[in-house]
Amino acid sequence: MNIKLFITGGTLDKVYNSRSGALEFDQSHVPQMLAQSRMTLEVTTEVLFLKDSLEFTEQDRELIVSKCRDCREKNIVISHGTDTMVETAQLLDKHIKDKTVVLFGAMIPYSIKNSDALFNLGTALSAAKNKPGVYIAMNGQIFTSDTVQKNKQLGVFE
Amino acid sequence: MNIKLFITGGTLDKVYNSRSGALEFDQSHVPQMLAQSRMTLEVTTEVLFLKDSLEFTEQDRELIVSKCRDCREKNIVISHGTDTMVETAQLLDKHIKDKTVVLFGAMIPYSIKNSDALFNLGTALSAAKNKPGVYIAMNGQIFTSDTVQKNKQLGVFE
Amino acid sequence: MNIKLFITGGTLDKVYNSRSGALEFDQSHVPQMLAQSRMTLEVTTEVLFLKDSLEFTEQDRELIVSKCRDCREKNIVISHGTDTMVETAQLLDKHIKDKTVVLFGAMIPYSIKNSDALFNLGTALSAAKNKPGVYIAMNGQIFTSDTVQKNKQLGVFE
Amino acid sequence: MNIKLFITGGTLDKVYNSRSGALEFDQSHVPQMLAQSRMTLEVTTEVLFLKDSLEFTEQDRELIVSKCRDCREKNIVISHGTDTMVETAQLLDKHIKDKTVVLFGAMIPYSIKNSDALFNLGTALSAAKNKPGVYIAMNGQIFTSDTVQKNKQLGVFE
Repeated sequence: MNIKLFITGGTLDKVYNSRSGALEFDQSHVPQMLAQSRMTLEVTTEVLFLKDSLEFTEQDRELIVSKCRDCREKNIVISHGTDTMVETAQLLDKHIKDKTVVLFGAMIPYSIKNSDALFNLGTALSAAKNKPGVYIAMNGQIFTSDTVQKNKQLGVFE
Repeated sequence: MNIKLFITGGTLDKVYNSRSGALEFDQSHVPQMLAQSRMTLEVTTEVLFLKDSLEFTEQDRELIVSKCRDCREKNIVISHGTDTMVETAQLLDKHIKDKTVVLFGAMIPYSIKNSDALFNLGTALSAAKNKPGVYIAMNGQIFTSDTVQKNKQLGVFE
Repeated sequence: MNIKLFITGGTLDKVYNSRSGALEFDQSHVPQMLAQSRMTLEVTTEVLFLKDSLEFTEQDRELIVSKCRDCREKNIVISHGTDTMVETAQLLDKHIKDKTVVLFGAMIPYSIKNSDALFNLGTALSAAKNKPGVYIAMNGQIFTSDTVQKNKQLGVFE
Repeated sequence: MNIKLFITGGTLDKVYNSRSGALEFDQSHVPQMLAQSRMTLEVTTEVLFLKDSLEFTEQDRELIVSKCRDCREKNIVISHGTDTMVETAQLLDKHIKDKTVVLFGAMIPYSIKNSDALFNLGTALSAAKNKPGVYIAMNGQIFTSDTVQKNKQLGVFE
């Protein structure tokens, strides 16, 4: 099974910029995370863009959909900001019927000591072999796109 | 779904002892890992012992089997040293027929910066909802106990 | 030699708030840093407040001065945001003549993997035994308060 | 002031080898530590060898002495295992009269989360500008070579 992993940014990939004092994007940490995981799956990564998901345009989301539709692989994982992850999942669910697509992200950037990013990557890669459908892998759970929402008060998916 | 997580030690839980210069057991890091993961599953942990799995006695393995058999939960995860993980999985497979048991561990201790432990925990907790059987969750894959071995040369399960 | 360590916040002590997505103050990490350092000096810590140094009021700075003047110890270290560290150092230099006061901070929060905080603490504690005067310990150097400025372009003191 | 930093190994530079399960040498982390420290001193590094200081031969120690004597710089820092650091310091003290030499190491390897290595580097670089002599920078203190010993029970220098 070959897995395609599309990278779109999100909290997971933010790093502290010591000049601005803000969390920004530099380059993706997903390749480093895959190395740290010591996983032996066949995973091909592709960076689509590095953005906060609150700043995704309609075109960004359409790019994600077309990339998922057009890639050779039947098993897809997407790193994605948590704020509009459900929205993208629901759009994917309308357009992708014969593939397994799993979205994941992090509540704490990978660059920060206490990050949940590596754990969520483990959950997401496990879910990539599920039957066709669009899933969200967060908080140790695999949600289907139509039964999940982010509780912004608690910072968890439910 | 309530998950029981039995802790038995292994590389995952080793820490550097600055006096002896060796990696030893102090206390389990699994509770801290569960907190870092931000998972929202119902997980109850229980430390059976903290040992290198090369030093497991027959009695240690029997304790693991009886604990799995006797606990209320139908979904069980076990943290375990990688060196004899397959052996314990095969013993469990003989005795536990109606429950899902997932063994996981780490090639690098959680106390070391580049550890795979958190990733493997994500994979293991995902597999805990599989149909009854005994599984090993390592290297991003879910193996069944009868089709897996540790390649000690490469340090991976296959 | 007893060292007083006053804690005032700054980048050093910021942590990522997963709800707001911003770096904020929760509690000081300086006690944890002292434990990690394995230092055997006699250090007493006191949190004055946890603030970004750009938000220091005149009263905040006066509190720092009076605390330095009134404490029993002759050797003082202060954790401080880098943006107005020089300003506080110059005020202290006017009022404290018979004590050694060393300000330090971090360009990257201690909660982030690549932080310089622990290194700067090492430099600052070393400088605490210097002859009376007000010093800034950053970038591996000990500056006197009248010959230092922060180069915000480069993010270094010079 | 140009500082020469000789690297000789020690606990500081050990990494976990997931195949052997032991802490071994791979390559030095000192360059990465210097980058993390954001120091702006002029430091030139040179790896002499990577060894546990218990395994130093007479020749190893003679190499350290001759390197310190022959280098252009008057200010020298040496990363060194803690177990025989005092012995090397005392040998250096006999042969190097006109330079400042500071030895430092770590009780916990830099590759382990809770390491004191970066802190000790901060202390050591600060001490490199001291008046000529041979010093040990550990536990936040600067010791002279004739008044220090390692308390192996407590794991501290005193």
